[in-house]
Amino acid sequence: MPLDRAVPAESAVTRDAHSGVLTERLFQTRRLSLDLAEPLSDEDQVVQAMEDASPTKWHLAHSTWFFERFVLAGFAPGYRVFDESFEYCFNSYYEAVGPRHPRPQRGLLTRPGASQVRAYRAHVDEALEALLSDGSDALPDKAQALIALGIYHEQQHQELLLTDILSLFAANPLKPAYRAPAPAAVPADQAPLAWIAFPGGVREVGHDGRGFAYDNEGPRHEVLLQPFKLASRAVTNGEWQAFMDDGGYETSALWLSDGWLTVQSEGWEAPLYWERGDDGWEQMGLRGLQPVDPAAPVRHVSYFEADAFARWAGKRLPSEFEWEVAAEGLPVEGRMLDMSVLRPLPAPSDGDGLQQMFGDVWEWTHSAYAPYPGFAAAEGALGEYNGKFMCNQFVLRGGACTTPEGHVRRTYRNFFYPQQRWQFTGLRLAEAA
Amino acid sequence: MPLDRAVPAESAVTRDAHSGVLTERLFQTRRLSLDLAEPLSDEDQVVQAMEDASPTKWHLAHSTWFFERFVLAGFAPGYRVFDESFEYCFNSYYEAVGPRHPRPQRGLLTRPGASQVRAYRAHVDEALEALLSDGSDALPDKAQALIALGIYHEQQHQELLLTDILSLFAANPLKPAYRAPAPAAVPADQAPLAWIAFPGGVREVGHDGRGFAYDNEGPRHEVLLQPFKLASRAVTNGEWQAFMDDGGYETSALWLSDGWLTVQSEGWEAPLYWERGDDGWEQMGLRGLQPVDPAAPVRHVSYFEADAFARWAGKRLPSEFEWEVAAEGLPVEGRMLDMSVLRPLPAPSDGDGLQQMFGDVWEWTHSAYAPYPGFAAAEGALGEYNGKFMCNQFVLRGGACTTPEGHVRRTYRNFFYPQQRWQFTGLRLAEAA
Amino acid sequence: MPLDRAVPAESAVTRDAHSGVLTERLFQTRRLSLDLAEPLSDEDQVVQAMEDASPTKWHLAHSTWFFERFVLAGFAPGYRVFDESFEYCFNSYYEAVGPRHPRPQRGLLTRPGASQVRAYRAHVDEALEALLSDGSDALPDKAQALIALGIYHEQQHQELLLTDILSLFAANPLKPAYRAPAPAAVPADQAPLAWIAFPGGVREVGHDGRGFAYDNEGPRHEVLLQPFKLASRAVTNGEWQAFMDDGGYETSALWLSDGWLTVQSEGWEAPLYWERGDDGWEQMGLRGLQPVDPAAPVRHVSYFEADAFARWAGKRLPSEFEWEVAAEGLPVEGRMLDMSVLRPLPAPSDGDGLQQMFGDVWEWTHSAYAPYPGFAAAEGALGEYNGKFMCNQFVLRGGACTTPEGHVRRTYRNFFYPQQRWQFTGLRLAEAA
Amino acid sequence: MPLDRAVPAESAVTRDAHSGVLTERLFQTRRLSLDLAEPLSDEDQVVQAMEDASPTKWHLAHSTWFFERFVLAGFAPGYRVFDESFEYCFNSYYEAVGPRHPRPQRGLLTRPGASQVRAYRAHVDEALEALLSDGSDALPDKAQALIALGIYHEQQHQELLLTDILSLFAANPLKPAYRAPAPAAVPADQAPLAWIAFPGGVREVGHDGRGFAYDNEGPRHEVLLQPFKLASRAVTNGEWQAFMDDGGYETSALWLSDGWLTVQSEGWEAPLYWERGDDGWEQMGLRGLQPVDPAAPVRHVSYFEADAFARWAGKRLPSEFEWEVAAEGLPVEGRMLDMSVLRPLPAPSDGDGLQQMFGDVWEWTHSAYAPYPGFAAAEGALGEYNGKFMCNQFVLRGGACTTPEGHVRRTYRNFFYPQQRWQFTGLRLAEAA
Repeated sequence: MPLDRAVPAESAVTRDAHSGVLTERLFQTRRLSLDLAEPLSDEDQVVQAMEDASPTKWHLAHSTWFFERFVLAGFAPGYRVFDESFEYCFNSYYEAVGPRHPRPQRGLLTRPGASQVRAYRAHVDEALEALLSDGSDALPDKAQALIALGIYHEQQHQELLLTDILSLFAANPLKPAYRAPAPAAVPADQAPLAWIAFPGGVREVGHDGRGFAYDNEGPRHEVLLQPFKLASRAVTNGEWQAFMDDGGYETSALWLSDGWLTVQSEGWEAPLYWERGDDGWEQMGLRGLQPVDPAAPVRHVSYFEADAFARWAGKRLPSEFEWEVAAEGLPVEGRMLDMSVLRPLPAPSDGDGLQQMFGDVWEWTHSAYAPYPGFAAAEGALGEYNGKFMCNQFVLRGGACTTPEGHVRRTYRNFFYPQQRWQFTGLRLAEAA
Repeated sequence: MPLDRAVPAESAVTRDAHSGVLTERLFQTRRLSLDLAEPLSDEDQVVQAMEDASPTKWHLAHSTWFFERFVLAGFAPGYRVFDESFEYCFNSYYEAVGPRHPRPQRGLLTRPGASQVRAYRAHVDEALEALLSDGSDALPDKAQALIALGIYHEQQHQELLLTDILSLFAANPLKPAYRAPAPAAVPADQAPLAWIAFPGGVREVGHDGRGFAYDNEGPRHEVLLQPFKLASRAVTNGEWQAFMDDGGYETSALWLSDGWLTVQSEGWEAPLYWERGDDGWEQMGLRGLQPVDPAAPVRHVSYFEADAFARWAGKRLPSEFEWEVAAEGLPVEGRMLDMSVLRPLPAPSDGDGLQQMFGDVWEWTHSAYAPYPGFAAAEGALGEYNGKFMCNQFVLRGGACTTPEGHVRRTYRNFFYPQQRWQFTGLRLAEAA
Repeated sequence: MPLDRAVPAESAVTRDAHSGVLTERLFQTRRLSLDLAEPLSDEDQVVQAMEDASPTKWHLAHSTWFFERFVLAGFAPGYRVFDESFEYCFNSYYEAVGPRHPRPQRGLLTRPGASQVRAYRAHVDEALEALLSDGSDALPDKAQALIALGIYHEQQHQELLLTDILSLFAANPLKPAYRAPAPAAVPADQAPLAWIAFPGGVREVGHDGRGFAYDNEGPRHEVLLQPFKLASRAVTNGEWQAFMDDGGYETSALWLSDGWLTVQSEGWEAPLYWERGDDGWEQMGLRGLQPVDPAAPVRHVSYFEADAFARWAGKRLPSEFEWEVAAEGLPVEGRMLDMSVLRPLPAPSDGDGLQQMFGDVWEWTHSAYAPYPGFAAAEGALGEYNGKFMCNQFVLRGGACTTPEGHVRRTYRNFFYPQQRWQFTGLRLAEAA
Repeated sequence: MPLDRAVPAESAVTRDAHSGVLTERLFQTRRLSLDLAEPLSDEDQVVQAMEDASPTKWHLAHSTWFFERFVLAGFAPGYRVFDESFEYCFNSYYEAVGPRHPRPQRGLLTRPGASQVRAYRAHVDEALEALLSDGSDALPDKAQALIALGIYHEQQHQELLLTDILSLFAANPLKPAYRAPAPAAVPADQAPLAWIAFPGGVREVGHDGRGFAYDNEGPRHEVLLQPFKLASRAVTNGEWQAFMDDGGYETSALWLSDGWLTVQSEGWEAPLYWERGDDGWEQMGLRGLQPVDPAAPVRHVSYFEADAFARWAGKRLPSEFEWEVAAEGLPVEGRMLDMSVLRPLPAPSDGDGLQQMFGDVWEWTHSAYAPYPGFAAAEGALGEYNGKFMCNQFVLRGGACTTPEGHVRRTYRNFFYPQQRWQFTGLRLAEAA
């Protein structure tokens, strides 16, 4: 999970923090979280469907606690902590801050109740408003940086709130829809797959320090690339179905050794949330159980599956640097959370060049998640764990249909374990040029 | 778990079903379930704290489904099933009825919501009222028997509702109280322990067929007893503390082999819900975290612990037949759920003879739970599993402070696995006369 | 496992210890252990195929250590311990004696080697010979009792040696035979099943103190029996096949709840060691993989299976006391280890009355293994654990084709967990008269 | 485990295969395996101490099967397979070849016995001698390549044979020595740690095709390095002790998240095989339990530990390419298996420049094990799994004191999971220049 793992360089944040903009984005973000929880009952908000997921209420409270603990406690004189016990309940893993409720038991916290958490949010928002009453420019740089970080942090939890509630609803025999089902997709002409070539050479990658970035996106540095090609769009459900029809899930030679063990122990035979319906495969989503759309990007596949698919296709996954270099110059636009579609859509059939680079699905790369040369952890609670997840995970790029607008960048590095698939994860193929 | 495991002989039930009494008891019982859920938020009612426990909402719905499925569906012409999907959600384990939601995932059912379940209860109660509008005598014997069974069934779930919500609240760092804490017990003179002697000989045990009983209480049959003595009251927390002080939890020679393995793997060093407080041991209960009362019966101990304690004390546990014979002639009275104390109390210091036989705590016996001679399972869904739990469990007798009034009998056989301790389980010592 | 769990009352043993007899039996037993190991390579003797089993070498050394520790150390002045490290390696579970090698790692003890263990046996035998040079009558009663106990103890390990080596060979793809395969059984006329009736009433059970017995066989006491019938012979493979053909392993209603869980988690569909061959079922045994003989008693079934079979057959298992009373007056004779057949044989078709009560297969009873009234553990290391296994196990009676001659009695109580089936365990049906 | 995972390009091997040299190396290697097994009893050779390890006998047979299956079956006309059943027993994981004995049960194969395996080796050696009677040049290139591969393959198993037997002996309470203990190391002047600087720039890495290499060492390609420094020698036990004294194993902030979970679940507090002795720490090794030598390289540490140590020291681990570039021009010499010391030794105090790059201990790099650009799996059984381990493992470089002479190269890539530590694994620090 890409949460709380990375903090920005202060200077980078500060530069981004144009007073009115920061304040506006802060409260927009705070409102969005409540909006996302609105379709959910208090009961929906308390349960944790699996260890990787957290309850909605926990997301709402934890992202609030982050502002209370790191912004208000430090920069709002006279701030009154809402409830001393909340730190224990809603700290995620900052060991420097103190002990905390065990992650797998987050779903046991029926108290404090959802209404108390909403009161907590109101209390903290009120204090943030008071703090920002003279504009964010009046605050110390450090405070501005922490507010910006709090915004990005809360956005990450917004995406998780959605993927986690999906894991809950998918486990419910009633298959409830988070939002009313949209009309089934009209079968579209599938965009023909094109291959876009890129030259090799020494290229700069990583964040350049202008605007906000997590520290795992830097330091900016040079890498040497071989010439390569990227597929013009993401792999589709229809293509995935061909992989399945060809025995993809039964052919050990296509899989990494650890992947094959997982296929067998978990009984995988399709992407997560696929179910056999009367008229073919269906997939549970935020709008309920719907027929699999062959033209839409495949979603909820693990790294193991993405890697096996690429091998089956005679291609490979791109490296994270290939992806980043290819995305140079592209606008950071795509089907993200603000579209409210809540599922990836087919690439427009009249598209040109690279499509779907941002939004729709997170794209697995074959790059193990590792520190960039010269990376060093920040000091203190926020930075204590910067590098602690840089092992056994793989980098994903580009954001998904559940990613809040304005959250991702070309240099943004998401990362998950190779067996995880409850995020909106898909893939794009690559090959040598 | 002593649930849904046993059905009465029809004739036995019918004899008990005096028309007005049955109707009155039915709706009293139905109301009590809602009363018990009243202090709980909807959030509290949906979560399952451990695999042995079920959510409050599930108890409320399952006991209602039982009436819908076995009474209304069969005997109320034109009855409209409230929601077809509820059978899958709220069937417990009747395989003859059909597939059902897996037990460990009961806590994932945020839908149907608590308000829907309350509407479900109202719908079924209305139909039951219509069915009984002419008095229960107007119904076939079979229907009367099933209504009586439904009452006892729901009472079992009432007790579980309480023990299960305690398991949830005990896991919450805020240690919420189910009911406002009562004033701490005034240290009472502890009733001196006396030993009551009983002769041996051939005795009849098991239910005699007058009034309601589960079928595991019969057939009535003869057993041969040796002369024995029973302690006049239950073992107290103070006596348990002495066992702990004497290294009871560290002395392997006191324990059954499987018990010692459990002590080590679970890290047991005290009864369940005991915590070290600033002023000594405290125990979480339905009225919150309170100091351990030395004069009150020890509760939340497993068979393994009860057996080890008895060995340490140089005594033994009684057999279930010793207990039953000793209880002959005693009124079925004691501190049970109707007292609303929700915890076991010290034996009155002015008591005489056997005290605390009914209520306070379920008493472990050393009898493995087994069929009585001639026991045969009933036909069909209700009876399909009568004997299926008769393995690796031990019999408990007498009821607890959480047992609804009128639920237990002298012949009542409760049973749990020897490692379980989330019920209000304690012990009484015995020895040869 | 019925090992090291029970010690005899001294007086009982002493009475049995007629000097020359004791000495002769001792060295016969000691020789038999080596004879049983003779067909095995040193490699065969070191490996532990599963946690329940122990290596042959361990059996040979542990039974020797028993004599060294409890007889020679106490009664042979000047005895020199063979190797101080052996106590740690070969103590089984006597906590009073000291720490010991963990049971699941017995198979890692490639050192001390098999030849050292043989030297150890010779060293101890020599010392025992010296000790007994004047006849066993010259020894204190206590020493004689311990020697007798050591003999019975070693006999138990002889049986385990065989069942444990079978578990090893059955896991070997080459399916090696412990002894050269005997000619396949000639299909015999199956003895027709008869039902033998026994009256009810108060009967004495348990050992009467004449001759050797383990302490779990006493105190002798009265029990009250209802009239009952026993099948004249054990259930056969052919009858078991009918149960399988009728869907026995797929019908949940036939099984105890814990049994059904085991069937599913273990994938049981036949007795242990059954494999599908080209011409029907085969079973691995001490003489290799052979066709299942329909007329021979079924073997390697668990309590769960035996119980399900009885329910399917409309019968039940006997209680241990029904078995014991029925066996009154029968000679303790049957197909045991001294016949060297190493598998159960069909009941003679010309037999009469109860057949196969002793030998062939251990017979599951429905009696939970529990202490007899008045049972008390002995003092010290040998007695520390007398009762520690009296939980969650069931009693078996009668001995098997792997039981050394002279080892069992009518009152002998063997016991295993209901899921265990690597012993030669079968069943005999019972019903009410 | 770095076994059987990589096959060489044929041409590369062929060029290396100067006729006489190949033949001589083949039979030297074959003899060495037997020499390594010589101190072991047959019992020692059959047991598998943990799932990662294999029995000695299995190594001896599997490396022989490799020649039988891939060389003799294809190139020796009329070759008679020694025993058809051996393929099932001793195939490791070549799925294209057929089913095979499950890895965790290799230790159950008491049959075929060690003597049969020795006969198997003799049979295959004889056939290889006949095949090579006219010199290896007379064989097709493909056969020469496979013989060369078989040699390297067997060398890998020689190293594993040693580390696996150590895992067995370390689990034995007698702590047997594989070879007689050498005199304790004379405390040496510790070589002062120096830092050797290397320039950055575009450099070529990977095997150049001259001589033998595994296919995971290629294709040769360019990488871009930043300037860096390497420590002149491996981290020592004394330095590790300082890390432990400073609370290294108790300080979560030093660890990767997955590493910290492992520390806690496994209870790590020192490198593998360290035990507290009367006079300080001791470590079990191939020469028995000996005091930890502060000047010798630390061994048996996992990637998690190496990474935490580097963080504690304010340094980092090198990348595999930094290591490879730094090693350019160094002779492939060091303390390896042919020295028979069987443990890493202190760096000579009079050394200069980079020391201990080859031999002593495998050095963890921070490079995730991944395919080089353009890497493609070979066809058929030998190549079917070339890439299958390229996930969640880290690259180690340089060989250890247990690595056969002539086995490693500058481009050699070993790889293990980050939690594994039963190999002779250590580390060397790096930092930016």
